[in-house]
Formats: sequence, structure tokens, C-alpha cells
Amino acid sequence: MKRFMDEDFLLSTETAKKLYNDYAKDQPIIDYHCHLSPREIYEDKEFKSVTEIWLSGDHYKWRLMRANGIKEKYITGDGDDREKFKKWAETLELSIGNPLYHWSHLELKRYFGFDGILCAENADEVYDLCNKRIRETGMSPKSLIRSSNVEVICTTDDPADTLMWHKKIREEGFEVHVLPSFRPDKAINIENDGFTEYIDRLSEISALPIANFDDLKKALKKRIDFFDENGCRVSDHGLPAVIFEKCMENEADDIFKKRLSGDKITDLEKRKYQTAILVFLGREYHKKNWAMQLHFGVQRDLNKKIFKALGADAGIDAILNGASAYDLGRFLNALAETDELPKTIIYSLNPGDNAFIDSCIGCFQDGVQIGKVQHGAAWWFNDHKAGMLEQMTGLANMGVLGNFVGMLTDSRSFLSYTRHEYFRRILCDMIGDMVEKGEYPAEEKSLKKIVEGICYNNAKRYFGF
Amino acid sequence: MKRFMDEDFLLSTETAKKLYNDYAKDQPIIDYHCHLSPREIYEDKEFKSVTEIWLSGDHYKWRLMRANGIKEKYITGDGDDREKFKKWAETLELSIGNPLYHWSHLELKRYFGFDGILCAENADEVYDLCNKRIRETGMSPKSLIRSSNVEVICTTDDPADTLMWHKKIREEGFEVHVLPSFRPDKAINIENDGFTEYIDRLSEISALPIANFDDLKKALKKRIDFFDENGCRVSDHGLPAVIFEKCMENEADDIFKKRLSGDKITDLEKRKYQTAILVFLGREYHKKNWAMQLHFGVQRDLNKKIFKALGADAGIDAILNGASAYDLGRFLNALAETDELPKTIIYSLNPGDNAFIDSCIGCFQDGVQIGKVQHGAAWWFNDHKAGMLEQMTGLANMGVLGNFVGMLTDSRSFLSYTRHEYFRRILCDMIGDMVEKGEYPAEEKSLKKIVEGICYNNAKRYFGF
Amino acid sequence: MKRFMDEDFLLSTETAKKLYNDYAKDQPIIDYHCHLSPREIYEDKEFKSVTEIWLSGDHYKWRLMRANGIKEKYITGDGDDREKFKKWAETLELSIGNPLYHWSHLELKRYFGFDGILCAENADEVYDLCNKRIRETGMSPKSLIRSSNVEVICTTDDPADTLMWHKKIREEGFEVHVLPSFRPDKAINIENDGFTEYIDRLSEISALPIANFDDLKKALKKRIDFFDENGCRVSDHGLPAVIFEKCMENEADDIFKKRLSGDKITDLEKRKYQTAILVFLGREYHKKNWAMQLHFGVQRDLNKKIFKALGADAGIDAILNGASAYDLGRFLNALAETDELPKTIIYSLNPGDNAFIDSCIGCFQDGVQIGKVQHGAAWWFNDHKAGMLEQMTGLANMGVLGNFVGMLTDSRSFLSYTRHEYFRRILCDMIGDMVEKGEYPAEEKSLKKIVEGICYNNAKRYFGF
Repeated sequence: MKRFMDEDFLLSTETAKKLYNDYAKDQPIIDYHCHLSPREIYEDKEFKSVTEIWLSGDHYKWRLMRANGIKEKYITGDGDDREKFKKWAETLELSIGNPLYHWSHLELKRYFGFDGILCAENADEVYDLCNKRIRETGMSPKSLIRSSNVEVICTTDDPADTLMWHKKIREEGFEVHVLPSFRPDKAINIENDGFTEYIDRLSEISALPIANFDDLKKALKKRIDFFDENGCRVSDHGLPAVIFEKCMENEADDIFKKRLSGDKITDLEKRKYQTAILVFLGREYHKKNWAMQLHFGVQRDLNKKIFKALGADAGIDAILNGASAYDLGRFLNALAETDELPKTIIYSLNPGDNAFIDSCIGCFQDGVQIGKVQHGAAWWFNDHKAGMLEQMTGLANMGVLGNFVGMLTDSRSFLSYTRHEYFRRILCDMIGDMVEKGEYPAEEKSLKKIVEGICYNNAKRYFGF
Repeated sequence: MKRFMDEDFLLSTETAKKLYNDYAKDQPIIDYHCHLSPREIYEDKEFKSVTEIWLSGDHYKWRLMRANGIKEKYITGDGDDREKFKKWAETLELSIGNPLYHWSHLELKRYFGFDGILCAENADEVYDLCNKRIRETGMSPKSLIRSSNVEVICTTDDPADTLMWHKKIREEGFEVHVLPSFRPDKAINIENDGFTEYIDRLSEISALPIANFDDLKKALKKRIDFFDENGCRVSDHGLPAVIFEKCMENEADDIFKKRLSGDKITDLEKRKYQTAILVFLGREYHKKNWAMQLHFGVQRDLNKKIFKALGADAGIDAILNGASAYDLGRFLNALAETDELPKTIIYSLNPGDNAFIDSCIGCFQDGVQIGKVQHGAAWWFNDHKAGMLEQMTGLANMGVLGNFVGMLTDSRSFLSYTRHEYFRRILCDMIGDMVEKGEYPAEEKSLKKIVEGICYNNAKRYFGF
Repeated sequence: MKRFMDEDFLLSTETAKKLYNDYAKDQPIIDYHCHLSPREIYEDKEFKSVTEIWLSGDHYKWRLMRANGIKEKYITGDGDDREKFKKWAETLELSIGNPLYHWSHLELKRYFGFDGILCAENADEVYDLCNKRIRETGMSPKSLIRSSNVEVICTTDDPADTLMWHKKIREEGFEVHVLPSFRPDKAINIENDGFTEYIDRLSEISALPIANFDDLKKALKKRIDFFDENGCRVSDHGLPAVIFEKCMENEADDIFKKRLSGDKITDLEKRKYQTAILVFLGREYHKKNWAMQLHFGVQRDLNKKIFKALGADAGIDAILNGASAYDLGRFLNALAETDELPKTIIYSLNPGDNAFIDSCIGCFQDGVQIGKVQHGAAWWFNDHKAGMLEQMTGLANMGVLGNFVGMLTDSRSFLSYTRHEYFRRILCDMIGDMVEKGEYPAEEKSLKKIVEGICYNNAKRYFGF
């Protein structure tokens, strides 16, 4: 029996151990998509307690605690920090097989020096130990980033953002590159409340009037230029589903004006507008040589009672099904047909979409950019061993796994860099397994190239950092 | 090589064996959902032959026999009992990997004392042996239930049922609790032929006139009270798909009256009515602290030729796809928003729905009831090793596996209790595998809690038996 | 560690090795569905270079090369043959886990006597070795077919085909049966450009006027007779999705005439027409005792830029989702209800459809023909170890795996017979694994029957070759 989370955690063969230790472990981290706050990085405040850093913003943990019958008081409420920590420990014990079991113990090990097993019985002790460690090490955002061998961080930012904190970080000379990503969801979700107010904000920050679709494009273009000047190399889009509804320029203009005037728009109009704006943005990204990330298959804020109490990102989001392989193909073609498809990374939260994504991206590789269209790493509800293996096996079966740009944290927590360790162990185990079974030759040179590529080199090359 | 179905059947590690033998094997069975006939339990007739008990009502076996080119005469027809048994033995040999291969041999072993391998050659001999055993042991519904360590059985009953047989069983003092479940499909399937006749029956049994939607609710409420008095703690719903179409009270009333008057209703009207009635029922279940089971993803009676000859439950049902994650979320929210969501167990026959179910239930856990919203055990066409592992792995990845209420038979046969053994072996093997791989610590106390919980304690607590 | 692709490639247990060597390896091949050119078989020209035979028509390889940033010049362009081969070797190294890694090395081993590992460094040498082998052995279509132990080949042919090449092959006495398959896609895809021209061609070859739906049916019937006389026993259909939209004879007639007159038809009309023609064809196949193959879940020619340059089959096809389990059931019932369902094999390119297919076919087994309705082997983007295991595990779980008709190449290449070896190894490993784990007894006789059946006997019996 293997000891829980020992040195060879998740590495079940000799080849896997070798690959991990020789080629994976020491690679720097390029975290090309996350939700860290640039302000928090800049301000670099020491954490108050392990509960603050571990539980206060982590809606993954909240969900499990609620499922374990823990009262909201001890989750997001005014419960005592120590009590909250204990309630989490109780919940964790029952969460066998959940990635949070592993993430939590990896974080305790790597950042807090706790090598045991957290449970209800020792929760008090571990709580004290962690807090002591925070104080002793002056644990803060930057100290965690530094100790995690991070090279690049791409945050997620609104086009109307001033990027003030990014500039400050740059100016003070922080050795890790903290770059913005361009996420214009608010300009795309035309049906949402607050859309017109958002357009006003965009108009203001870009110092351009926005009265029609052409104005909007000009403003967005200006912000893209601004983001680019500030080091942005990646965009990101959160969409319920990839859509494609052919839309003429004048149609988009009519719909946009209709919405600005305060009218409601139809579902078809929404789809048309979104198609038009996404195609426009894709072309702009292509000009800048940015990568375009598309995240879809999510439905947010399902539980309205909790939403009213806590707002967004409260652990009440879920997988949405029903995405259309047909629309994805037509969307990519709309850009590829005129040679304007940017580097693109596609993520669906619905693992049932993996197969069509893997087959679809193979149609839009262009023979110029290596691995131009990527199927993004297993994400959110799929960010676990089974999900990663499924995503990488699919990719391997239908494409060139060796060109995969690999892992990102997608996290709001400064402790999540261990997810890269987790991913790398799983990757090396998967490849090691193939080699040991005689399904890929034990060729050191090729294996090194593949493992180092997926852990670091591919992302470095792909994004041009 | 492991011997076929030896003591350690499906238990591939030492930890798995220990978990199964120490914590799983001897737990009583809470069969919280099945299709056993309370009348047959009460009447407790000795079986005539193994063919009667094994083949006469088992449409799982019929499907395989038809697929093996066996004539209907030897499946559901007037063929000789011995011949039918032999034809099944022939079919079984080729059904490698099918759960029926395992179920059949487990049943032969546990109930008939046959430890060999059934095949065409020994079918005659095994047939005689089984029949001898039936006579020797006076094998009957109650004797089988008794010998299977069953504590609770929840049958599946129509609101218009008198529950006469349940009462008789209770009155005679059978030591196993045989409780009704409330399954009001006929009141929900408004589009079906016979709906108005069914409403008449409901009116009669509840001694209430039913002329409008409000009347219907009163009648159903009265039947819920009646079922509750008779020990019911669980409802069950068979739906093609979870639907949600907002419906005002007066709309439901109009639709209901329209249908009662003999008019056809539209698909939209059907969806509205069904939403209204399900939301109403959910609230009532919540008041009674019942669990609501939703079974969806089924299409029934596909083969009309066989349906005409044999009627329903003839082995001609299949998985339906196309269920909407969006509707599921809105349906659960409609109840949760007003704090009226009952304990809920969701089952889809389409394994492609597992991921969205697992993510959706996590949004509606309420921090009061442990594991309030459950993803039900792998069911019907998924009731096999791969299906169970898929369902439990998904649950583990996205939720708290330790709170899972575990297995039910969903069966029409008194021999199916071995499915609990089958499930428990697979559960222990899955958990043993995690432990031996170092993915969960070898902590006896936690493992005992988890395994005993999933086998027995969780269901006991959850349903309040 | 197992050596890469040694004698026991993919065979991980002793039982698997025994099953493969004793029962699988030497079975003849019945390739009941492929895209080989009967003309090329008849003409039997010696290949010019390994690039011609390996790369010139293989869009599977093209996709991977494009994904690896190889310029089109070296894929489908006028690049030098040697350079193309080298670029493929470079790409292959990174394609860890891709079936092409295995296929390529199996083909190099079996047909070119190269037992090493192809990589960028030795590409030149291997290129020369292969070309030498081509010249030395006079490698040609027939020589490859002969050396592969092939018994029957079913090509894919249009109803308007003269079957001239099939006749020539027959007349010259080639010892392998090269039979036509009937693939009337062009008569079904009523919405396509060129439909009316195609109907003219059909009219001409059948020497019958086609002015209405009844004429069309007569012409198709005549071609079915003609194909049948020429040894055809199988039809094939490529459909985006299985559809079912009830259609009266006069409706089909109106739609057909409308289309012939040059008018556009609606999507509903298309669906109605296609349902009518497919039901008609199914009945005709049933009369002839042909098997009907339905391939769905594909979207073709997604990348219009490449399509314009290269046309169809250029590596720009993908999986389509959204197929309806409901329609599949109704379609099969439309034929079964009147006892006119032919032997049917269903393939979906979307692996998410596997479960509903496996459950649906079980509803239409008729107790006469063994394994009448089949779930076809994992195909195209799923034609790999994981895909095959998924397809066969699903089949085993819901049906009688022992009656599966097994593998086909579906290939355009004369080197693809090694895919049967690949499949057989995976099959034997899967079965060996069950046996070694004690999940199926180590009964030699049954295992022999099952393995030989799936490799050869079942197809032989099923198709009546």
C-alpha cells in the first residue's frame, strides 16, 4: 500500500516518477488564466488567519460544507474563524475522492508545513499551526507567488478596467509578470441588466462616444490597444454556449441601438449581436497575435435564495448542457475562412462536449502556428484526476498531445499553485503508464520534450511570453 | 488469476476485502425504492419453479434472449419452463461483461446453493437443482426477504391505491417494514389517454370532487396524508425529462379544465401543467419531510409490435437523451427559493447527464439536512460495475461521497437483494483502490464511517426510517 | 516495463495473450465496410513510394500535421515526397497516445519490415527502407490484401455506379471477394446542390423515367436488384443525424416534385422526405436480407478555406452532437412494427450517443436473427483503444457482447488491415482482464466461441457471406 500523499503521490510507475522528478517538478509556472486580484497582489497584505486565506473566498469548499449539513454561519456567515476551520475539517473527512481532499492536503503540506491528515480531531491543532506559520513567514500574496516558482500570471480583467494595479506592480519591479487578460463579457451579454450603463462606462474610459455598433467596435479596439500596451496577450470569454447566428453589420447595428434605447431584444437578436461582436473581437485578437479563450457550458447563480444573500461566486453555479458542435464549427470557420482566426483555446464545463471539441479543433489547425486551436485543460467541476485524464486522453486520441499548452489555475486563491503540481503528477502518471505498458517507446529524448512542453515550454511559445 | 466469483469477487485489494468483510457485508438492507408487489409479499406463495421466479417477469433477461435469437415462445410465450431455462443458460454464456452474468450467478449461489457456472451443458441439472431447492426450502417472497437481511422495503404505489396489502402485512406483524412510496405519475401525465378516468378514480378514493386544479391539489394532499399515515416517507416520479415552464395558478387551472373537458392540450400546456403540479407536490413532500425521487431519461414501449403483444415492462424501453440542465436548475430553485425544497434524489437514465446532475445538486444543499439533494445510484441500464463506478466517481469528484444514500434494487424480483452485495463489493473496491494508491489515508475510523454510511447509516438517517 | 509494441502489444495478461494467439490472430478478415477503390484493386498498380501509399490520401495524418504547424505544402501540396515523410515522422513523435502512433508503427512492422521507432532522426533511413521494400515486393493493392488474410471486402458505392470494376475483379478470379455496398446518400440528401442532376443520372442508369416519388422508388429498387446480383449484402448511409418525421406517401411525392422543379425545400420537408425514403429503403433491404448500416453524428467540410482548396475528405470533418434517441427509436419502430426491419448496424460518431444506442437496439432484437440490431464498432475519431473499450464495454453492459459482428476498417488505405490486429488485441485484452479478475470464468470453450465469433464467425453468419 502506498502511503497517503507521499513523495510519489499519484505516480504509480517508475517511469512516472522519473518523468515527474526529472522533467516536470522544477518547471516554472505560467498561470495563463486565473482570477487573482492584481490589487491584492500589489497591496500584499499579510493574511490574518488560515480561515481567511483558505475558506473566506473559496466557493468550492462552501459547496461541500453545505452538502455536509454545515450551517451557513460557519461557511460564509459570522461564525468564529476557528469553528469554520473545524467544520471544514469535518467535511473534508467524508469527501473521499474529491479533489479538494488532495488540494487541501497539498496546500497544508507545501505552504503550511503540515504533513499529517486533517480531521475533526486535530483541526484545532492544525488551525494553530497554520496561523503560526502565517505569522512566522509573513505569508502574503507575493510571498506565496514567489515560493511557487511562478513566472507569469494572467489575471482576468474588464475592458473598462484602468489596469492601475497592473501598472503599479510593474513599476515596483515585482519579478513575476502579472499581466491583464481581456474579458469583455459585459459588452457581449447585451441582454443583461446594466448593459447600457456598462456601455457608458466603456465610452468614458475609452474617451469615445458609443452610439452605434461601429462606435462600440472602435472603443473596444482602443481598449485592446491599451491592454496590449500593458502586456496583455490573452483574452477570455465566459459564454453559456458557443453560438453562431449569421449577422450582417447593419443588423448588429440595429440590435445594438435598439438595446441602447432601452428596448428588450429577442433571443435571436441576442444571438446575432453576440456572433457579430465575437467575430469582430476574434479578428482583433488575431491582429494582435493574442490567444482567444472561450469558456462555455456554465450556468450561474442557480440558487436564487443564496444569490440574494451572497451574490455571485457563492458556490451556486453548475454545468450547462446543450452546446452545439454545429455552432462551434461555424464560429471557428467564420474567422478561419478569411485567415483571421486567432490562436484559440476552447473549454467546455460539460465533459460530454470533450469529444466534439477535440474533433473540431483538428479542422482549424493551420499548419503555421503549432497547436493553434487548443482544447483547454479540464476546468472547475472537471479539475480533478478523472477529468484531467479524460481531457488529455481525448486530446491524445484525436490530436497531438505533445503540443498541449497545459495547466492553468483558474483560481481566486493564492494557494492554488499546487494545482500545477497536481496536474503534473497526473500527466506524468498517464504518460508513464503508456510507456510502461509498451504503448509509447521509452525514448528519453521524446518524453522529455513532451513533458517539459506540456508543463512549460508550450505555453511559453504559444502565448509569446 | 482470480477464480470466478470467489469469496473476494470484485475485491481486488486487501483494503477492499477488509472494508467489505468488516464494514459492508453484514449491514442490513434498506431498499428504499423497488417495484415488488406488496400483495405477493403478503400472500407469500411458494414459487412453482425457478423459471417462474427467475424468468417470468424479468424483462432484463428477455432483452438478452431476443438479442441471442431466441424465439419469443421461449421468452414470454408458452414454451416449457425447462426449455426456457435452457435458452437463458445458452444466452448467458455469450453475455460476457453483462451484469446479468453476475447477478444470475450470485442469485444461484446465494439462494439456490449452486456454486458452478451455468451453461447450456448443465442447464438441465441446474434447473432440477434449483427446483429441488425451492421445494426443500419452501422458497417464497417472505423467505427470500428474511434471508436477505432486509430492514425496510419501499414499494412503488399509485396515489389511488388503497394500500390494503401494506396494511395486511403490517397487521400480521411481518418483521420487515414494507412501506408504500407515493408515485403520482398518472396525475402528472396529463397528455396520456385515460387521464380523465384516472382523475375520476382519484376523486373517488379521496372522496373529493375534482373539477379544477385546486380540487386536484386537495385530493392529492389528502392522499399524501393517507400515505404518510401508512408509513410512506418517499415519493417517486417517472418523467421523460425534468421540465420547467413557469406556470401561474390560473394557467394550470385552465389547462387542467381544458383536458378534463376532453380537449387536447399543447406541448407547452403540458409542460406548464406538469411544472405546476410538481412544484405543488414538492412543497407538500417538504412539509411531510418526505424525500422526492425524480427518475428521468427514459423512453418506454418503443417497439410497438411487442408492446401490442405484451404491454408495458416487456423489455422495450430505452434511454432518452436531451434532458436540460437548465430546466433542472430552475425546477430545484422554484422550490428552494421559498425554502420548500424537500430532500430530493435525482436519477437520470442517460449517463451523459451525470456531470450536470452532480454539479447542480451542489447548488441546492442547504446546510441543514446532510446530503439533502442526492444523485441517485446508477440505475437500470447503468446498474453495473462501470455505471456504478461512473456515478460514484462523479459524485466523489463534485460532492461528498461519504454522505451518499447508496443502493436500492429498483427491481420486480425477490432475488434482487444480491444487487446490494454487488454494489457493496464495487463500492469497497473503489474505496480500497483509492486507499492502496495513497489517494485517501488508511484511516480505519474514517473508512468505517464512510462505508457503513453508504451501505446503511446514511439511508437510515436520510429517510428517517 | 513492456517493450514498445512487442509480440504482446496491448496484451497485458496471460489470458489475453492466449486468447489472441490461439483464437484471434489467425482468423481471416471480413472487412464489411471500407472505402477502398475497386478500380485501384483491379488495376493493382505498384506503389511509387511510401509517401504515396501512406500520406497522399490519409486525412487522419493531415490533421495531425497541421496541428503540428507543418505547412500545407508538405501535407497535401507539392512538397517533395521525402520531405513529407520526414514532416510526418516529426509530428508522430509528439502524437503520444494517438492511434496513428500505433497504426503507423504496426504498418511499418507488418508491411515494411521496420521494427524500430520512427522519428525525425531516422526518417530518411526509414523512407529509403520502405521504398526499397515496395520495389522488392512489388507492393500493390492486391499484394497487400493477399498478405493480410482478407476474405471479403465490401466497398462503398453509389446506386448509379455501374459496378464495372467489381465485375472485372470477379471475372479475373481474384480469390478475395470484393463486393459492393449500396450507399444512396445522394438520393437522400434532397437539399444538396446537384440533387436533380443526380436523379437524372439515376434515371439514366436504371433506364427508368423519374418524375415522382414512386418512380424514384422503382429506380432505386432496380438498382438494389442489380447490386444484389453483384454480390451486395450491405447498404450504408451517412446521415448527420437519425431523423424521424412521419411522412405520408403523397407528402413525399409533393416534396420530391417540388425539389425536382428547382424549388427550395424547408427543413421539415427535408426531414419528411428523408424519413420516407429511408423507411422505403429499409423495407427493400429487409426483402433482400441485406444489412442496413447507419452512420451518423458527423459534420463535414467545416473549414471552408481548406474545402475550397482541397475538396471533401481533407481532414476537416468533426463530430456532430444533438442526435435524438427519440427519433432513433421511432425510426426503428417504423420498420419493426410491420416486421420489415432489416438487420441494422448503428454507428454514431458522437461517443455520448453510445449509451442510448446500446439501450435502443435491445428493444428491436427479434428473437430470430442472432444480434439483429448491432451497435457498430468504434469509428473514425473513436477508432482507438479508449473508444473501442468504451463501445465494447457499453455493448457488454447492455447486450450480448458475444454476438458482436466486430471490426471493419472504414479505410481508404490498403495498409489499414492492421486495424483488425489492433482491434483484436484490444478485444482479447478486455476479455482477458475480465477472466483474470474473476469476472468471467476461465472456460476455454466459451472464450473460444466468443473471441472467434467477434473476430470472424459472427460477421460471416450475420452478413451471409
